[in-house]
Amino acid sequence: MTQPLKQTILKTSSQCKARRSSIETPHGTVQTPMFMPVGTLASVKFLSPEDLKNMNSQVILSNTYHLWLRPGESVVKHAGGLHKFMNYDGPILTDSGGFQVFSLGKIRTIEEEGVHFRSHLSGEKLFLTPEKSIQVQNDLGADIIMSFDECPPYPADHDYMKKSVERTLRWAKRGQDAHQRPHDQALFGIVQGGEYEDLRELSAKTLVDMDFPGYSIGGTSVGEPKDVMYKMIDYSVKHLPENKPRYLMGVGDVAGIFEGVIRGVDMFDCVLPTRIARHGTAMTSTGRVNIKNKKFEYDLSPLDENCDCEACTHYTKSYLRHLIRANEGFGMRLLSIHNLRFLLKLMEDIRDAIDEDRLLELRDEVYARYGIDSIDHPGW
Amino acid sequence: MTQPLKQTILKTSSQCKARRSSIETPHGTVQTPMFMPVGTLASVKFLSPEDLKNMNSQVILSNTYHLWLRPGESVVKHAGGLHKFMNYDGPILTDSGGFQVFSLGKIRTIEEEGVHFRSHLSGEKLFLTPEKSIQVQNDLGADIIMSFDECPPYPADHDYMKKSVERTLRWAKRGQDAHQRPHDQALFGIVQGGEYEDLRELSAKTLVDMDFPGYSIGGTSVGEPKDVMYKMIDYSVKHLPENKPRYLMGVGDVAGIFEGVIRGVDMFDCVLPTRIARHGTAMTSTGRVNIKNKKFEYDLSPLDENCDCEACTHYTKSYLRHLIRANEGFGMRLLSIHNLRFLLKLMEDIRDAIDEDRLLELRDEVYARYGIDSIDHPGW
Repeated sequence: MTQPLKQTILKTSSQCKARRSSIETPHGTVQTPMFMPVGTLASVKFLSPEDLKNMNSQVILSNTYHLWLRPGESVVKHAGGLHKFMNYDGPILTDSGGFQVFSLGKIRTIEEEGVHFRSHLSGEKLFLTPEKSIQVQNDLGADIIMSFDECPPYPADHDYMKKSVERTLRWAKRGQDAHQRPHDQALFGIVQGGEYEDLRELSAKTLVDMDFPGYSIGGTSVGEPKDVMYKMIDYSVKHLPENKPRYLMGVGDVAGIFEGVIRGVDMFDCVLPTRIARHGTAMTSTGRVNIKNKKFEYDLSPLDENCDCEACTHYTKSYLRHLIRANEGFGMRLLSIHNLRFLLKLMEDIRDAIDEDRLLELRDEVYARYGIDSIDHPGW
Repeated sequence: MTQPLKQTILKTSSQCKARRSSIETPHGTVQTPMFMPVGTLASVKFLSPEDLKNMNSQVILSNTYHLWLRPGESVVKHAGGLHKFMNYDGPILTDSGGFQVFSLGKIRTIEEEGVHFRSHLSGEKLFLTPEKSIQVQNDLGADIIMSFDECPPYPADHDYMKKSVERTLRWAKRGQDAHQRPHDQALFGIVQGGEYEDLRELSAKTLVDMDFPGYSIGGTSVGEPKDVMYKMIDYSVKHLPENKPRYLMGVGDVAGIFEGVIRGVDMFDCVLPTRIARHGTAMTSTGRVNIKNKKFEYDLSPLDENCDCEACTHYTKSYLRHLIRANEGFGMRLLSIHNLRFLLKLMEDIRDAIDEDRLLELRDEVYARYGIDSIDHPGW
């Protein structure tokens, strides 16, 4: 294929902006809307590629910043890229490193050329530019890669945000020019602009003019209220073309997923499900459960009666509670499997609901089960 | 079956005291000599029961002391015993708690009735007696259980050791009397006596008179030199019956296994393979390898060309090195699988060699590959 991605819109909701699509990638075709598990360091923590296949995972995400630092992109390139390095033959997406530079890096200095900062691991001085981010991502070899962007904190004033958006747009162009593998790696532009409608419009329209194979919505999940985030999505999506994938970065809570899908988003990712799993919090069909709770000590029922994952079909709450309390890796493995399968199954249900034009009904059902009142009170 | 174990000797070596046998247990028949992976807290760390089956594991071991403290035997009993609790349908062995009381417990006071000590977790005052150990093990419900014994340090003088052995023999009788499930749990007597030939004889003969369904050799792997341990085995085995299983507790290094098998031992266990795996040390056919070594950074070959485990058939040294350096649980999972499979395969080779009466030749081959010169210099 000369284009690395081909999106086919299979169904458009009559109720809202939601759409069902399939996306062909160099490593297989995936169905959207979809949730993408995060494998920060070329491993979804505790899980094997077979575990991911067994839960019907599609695209997985890995972090450019972390892999650049450890093991270094040259090690991954030497192995033949991320797919071969981690022995995973499904589609992979890498981010640009921008988010980590701004959330983990110490003593940042942003200039036109790029960002100076110190490694969160060694304190070493580092400099990340749009060209360097793309070079690292070309070496990692993911199917979908991201433009290097500034991810400003929330709130940021309009003046700062305007300068940031304009610089990020120049960085997007530089990244596009530096991209060496446009035939087999789809580079997405990232819409920024904070909560400002005019800046989201500026960002989206400029990126669309540059004709990227897909678009991300960035600058979300940085501490803003939920209703602000939903506006950011609206302000961005309205300027994006129908026939290109839309990816809402860093969102993986139930309400965020529904509200994103309703607004026309195709792709989601979040570390939350696996991170909270390792601390004993399970996402279930009736809300979050802390498995360490004393009330589960003798509970021989599964974590979630409605779940088909390895944890729920093979083990009891009593056993899972014991494993997590004893800090056993197998407990973290099982809860990670559960939380990911929970979200992947939710996406399957969402896709079915779009096909059958009853997405809003599904949303109301799920919100009622969770005790999510409205988009202003999204619960978890 | 009215007897929980039935051992059938299939072949006796013409070269040494080694024997091949099968042992029928309430959860299946196993082949000896065998190595038993350790699942301290009702989980072989990071691994699922399916992982254990895939590596042809047979019996697994779990620790009474640890399960007594966490989650408590009542939780395991409520689930229907360890097999159901951890969803493992193969044979399980539990130790008596004696070794952990003496190695982990604080401020011990030994008296005729039992041992006073403090929990290594909470500092709580605890009292373990032969009856309590058996009650906990009856509740856990393993196929093979152990008498509660004192495990004296090395060296201990003859006077102390004699008093200890005599008390441990009285404890063995009390445990035997307290045992509520002799029809489906095989209670082993534990031969003690340190390095003293007369005390090993006293211990072994007294236990044999009590007619246990199997015998353990205890007081090894407590800091004594290898040659002393081999004498302890010799002094014990010579007084044990041919038709009962013999279990050398806590030994799982290559030389220890060979020298034990040669001296007539059937069963081995050790936490070493999984513990060192979690720190990045792999047992390979040419000796130990620290995967964190810089020289493996770009090494795309498997950990061990001769190994059929998941780690060696799916991943490279370069990837495993990265995972372990980044402290990734999946790396610990893969190295644990590898080290266990390495030892299980070694036992398969040992069983074949006994069948074909070439055990000493196999030992010499393996020692040569490892650089183990003799039993006095067993390497690892």
